[in-house]
Amino acid sequence: MYRLFVLAKCDLGHAASVGNRIAEMEEVSEVYSVTGEYDLLIKVGFSDLPEIEDFVQEKLHAVPGLKETVTMMSYRVYGEDIGDFVS
Amino acid sequence: MYRLFVLAKCDLGHAASVGNRIAEMEEVSEVYSVTGEYDLLIKVGFSDLPEIEDFVQEKLHAVPGLKETVTMMSYRVYGEDIGDFVS
Amino acid sequence: MYRLFVLAKCDLGHAASVGNRIAEMEEVSEVYSVTGEYDLLIKVGFSDLPEIEDFVQEKLHAVPGLKETVTMMSYRVYGEDIGDFVS
Amino acid sequence: MYRLFVLAKCDLGHAASVGNRIAEMEEVSEVYSVTGEYDLLIKVGFSDLPEIEDFVQEKLHAVPGLKETVTMMSYRVYGEDIGDFVS
Amino acid sequence: MYRLFVLAKCDLGHAASVGNRIAEMEEVSEVYSVTGEYDLLIKVGFSDLPEIEDFVQEKLHAVPGLKETVTMMSYRVYGEDIGDFVS
Amino acid sequence: MYRLFVLAKCDLGHAASVGNRIAEMEEVSEVYSVTGEYDLLIKVGFSDLPEIEDFVQEKLHAVPGLKETVTMMSYRVYGEDIGDFVS
Amino acid sequence: MYRLFVLAKCDLGHAASVGNRIAEMEEVSEVYSVTGEYDLLIKVGFSDLPEIEDFVQEKLHAVPGLKETVTMMSYRVYGEDIGDFVS
Amino acid sequence: MYRLFVLAKCDLGHAASVGNRIAEMEEVSEVYSVTGEYDLLIKVGFSDLPEIEDFVQEKLHAVPGLKETVTMMSYRVYGEDIGDFVS
Amino acid sequence: MYRLFVLAKCDLGHAASVGNRIAEMEEVSEVYSVTGEYDLLIKVGFSDLPEIEDFVQEKLHAVPGLKETVTMMSYRVYGEDIGDFVS
Amino acid sequence: MYRLFVLAKCDLGHAASVGNRIAEMEEVSEVYSVTGEYDLLIKVGFSDLPEIEDFVQEKLHAVPGLKETVTMMSYRVYGEDIGDFVS
Repeated sequence: MYRLFVLAKCDLGHAASVGNRIAEMEEVSEVYSVTGEYDLLIKVGFSDLPEIEDFVQEKLHAVPGLKETVTMMSYRVYGEDIGDFVS
Repeated sequence: MYRLFVLAKCDLGHAASVGNRIAEMEEVSEVYSVTGEYDLLIKVGFSDLPEIEDFVQEKLHAVPGLKETVTMMSYRVYGEDIGDFVS
Repeated sequence: MYRLFVLAKCDLGHAASVGNRIAEMEEVSEVYSVTGEYDLLIKVGFSDLPEIEDFVQEKLHAVPGLKETVTMMSYRVYGEDIGDFVS
Repeated sequence: MYRLFVLAKCDLGHAASVGNRIAEMEEVSEVYSVTGEYDLLIKVGFSDLPEIEDFVQEKLHAVPGLKETVTMMSYRVYGEDIGDFVS
Repeated sequence: MYRLFVLAKCDLGHAASVGNRIAEMEEVSEVYSVTGEYDLLIKVGFSDLPEIEDFVQEKLHAVPGLKETVTMMSYRVYGEDIGDFVS
Repeated sequence: MYRLFVLAKCDLGHAASVGNRIAEMEEVSEVYSVTGEYDLLIKVGFSDLPEIEDFVQEKLHAVPGLKETVTMMSYRVYGEDIGDFVS
Repeated sequence: MYRLFVLAKCDLGHAASVGNRIAEMEEVSEVYSVTGEYDLLIKVGFSDLPEIEDFVQEKLHAVPGLKETVTMMSYRVYGEDIGDFVS
Repeated sequence: MYRLFVLAKCDLGHAASVGNRIAEMEEVSEVYSVTGEYDLLIKVGFSDLPEIEDFVQEKLHAVPGLKETVTMMSYRVYGEDIGDFVS
Repeated sequence: MYRLFVLAKCDLGHAASVGNRIAEMEEVSEVYSVTGEYDLLIKVGFSDLPEIEDFVQEKLHAVPGLKETVTMMSYRVYGEDIGDFVS
Repeated sequence: MYRLFVLAKCDLGHAASVGNRIAEMEEVSEVYSVTGEYDLLIKVGFSDLPEIEDFVQEKLHAVPGLKETVTMMSYRVYGEDIGDFVS
């Protein structure tokens, strides 16, 4: 299980539509509006690495209203790995 | 349920000890080593707001080897709220 | 009582109109033009967390002339909590 | 009435002591722990400009555990000026 | 006497016209082209605080070719206050 | 007449002593405590370029409590050049 | 053998097309999508310095969808220089 | 094959010793001194994800003279994947 | 002899045309494409200060394809001043 | 001829000693104190690439009082290449 975290900035007024759209994507387990410089924090799970490519470039970056993303790959889970409960 | 995300920088070579220490804290549901500028991404759950204060100031910021934190409060969950499964 | 502080940049020449517009919003207790990199500092009060979502995404980010916001959630008040005297 | 807002970073683990100490200062009406890059947001009121100098340099910057401050002077209040209710 | 300093970036090729235009404003005592990241450094004097609002929002930010400003309020003069000799 | 502007950060609690010390320097016409990221804004006048070297490196950077400086050289004065009235 | 590394940001949704286009360039030995602030990390080899100019300005910066690049020239290889195996 | 790229800053004068030390690590295929803000660019290969944790935290961050690292995980190779030829 | 150094960013694909255009300017002694965040490093010589104004505002900032500049004035030459050999 | 430009920050009060020391190095053709964020701009010439390594790591970064450097490699000279007149 690979986990990618994405911090996303949206065009002003588009955070909700972007957040909802991303939350529907099968790889996505959690999407939050967060305080601070970024609008959204997104948690994504993959079974293998190449999936990340499709997700980021074909799906995530195709969402209208998205402005900028910073991706962070998790390479270690501390404590018990509770896994992801993708709805 | 309040969710706080914390991006943390650690003194060089201390990320593992800091990560493990934080993962043991009851409020903490997930701790990851992540690529990028920060060493750790931490997900914390609270039942009420004042708990955040104790967590950040008394517990998190007391962990030896921690250098800097940026906190982000979640104020909206998109899609189904899967809750947190605190070990 | 949840308090959110917002630092806002406006399109050049729009700070006044943006400031006035935001000051009329019921959740908003105080709006200031401030020196420095940002044009406005806004103080907002909520009775529960989900209200923040509507405020930030539906109301604040819909104000014409607003360019960029950084939100900060207060999680502790020091000294006596004087509350907010929303006009 | 002059209002100064101060964003403050504290040495790790000192935010609470710094916040409490500042909240006791007569010029200070409100002090918050806030999410984000800074630890504290402080609201200060003055009756005349030179008071700011004493406050920032003699009092604020003398508090042990304070690391860095960014000050913002308010030069306009939008909507009704609710004043400051200094405890 | 309130003094406000403004660092200003201009659209490429507009610094001269912006500088000249600002120098004609009655509140403005000095305008310089400066080396570095910013194009202009502007020194402005006010007899009372609300004037700043009009100057920054109604006059300064209305100048065509101006791109971005950072304002700094002076709250202490060191040595003899030589005042401002507004032409 | 060459004019150099210096934005200076001081060690916490040292801005006053640094400001006073600098204000006594013959080349210095004005020194202000300012809001924002920097503590002081300094205006210096020189009759020829090499003087700047001595001032910055031998005098300014020798002042105890000074932490960091950004220098900006003025290469154009807009409007009437009111000169500098060095006390 | 001169090696240049390029960190590249692409217009949202264009990283794949930009990456593929650049990977076809003869000077290019490796192109990766990477996590973090940048979309692509590119490794380029040259037999002499002036080739860099043509590559960066005529070829790389002509690729549609490319937004911003930061170039880093390697001036030392540690350990065994495995050379570049340009397909 | 997982590839991690690391941009590293070293304590002044330590880049060579750090570079040599890292080049000896079995996971490391290439280490370069590069121009720009960072001292070293490091290319590391792993057969599985958890290895990254050990490498970054136990080996890389234990090298004396290393000051700061930014890690970037590759999740796509463009063009032919030439693999890594670890000496 | 006044020397001004300019770091310049260009619109993507325009560095060559901008570089060539600037190199023809009489005040300019050297123009380089450089690695890093900026596209060009320009060295300019003036016999008196006001010339800088014309050069920066009338000539440099009028070059099509130029996006952003940071200017640095030299105020001391170390070692022998080799002067500038303007072609 | 390879040309490397170095922007250098020095410990406060050490710019002169650092500048003088560097100006004596045979590879160095020009060293300037410059306005702005950096203290020194250094121009260095090499006949081949590996020399850069020795210069940066063994000589430049060994100078006491130097704090931080950003290196930029020139890969194109516009207009006539006037060469370097190393004293």
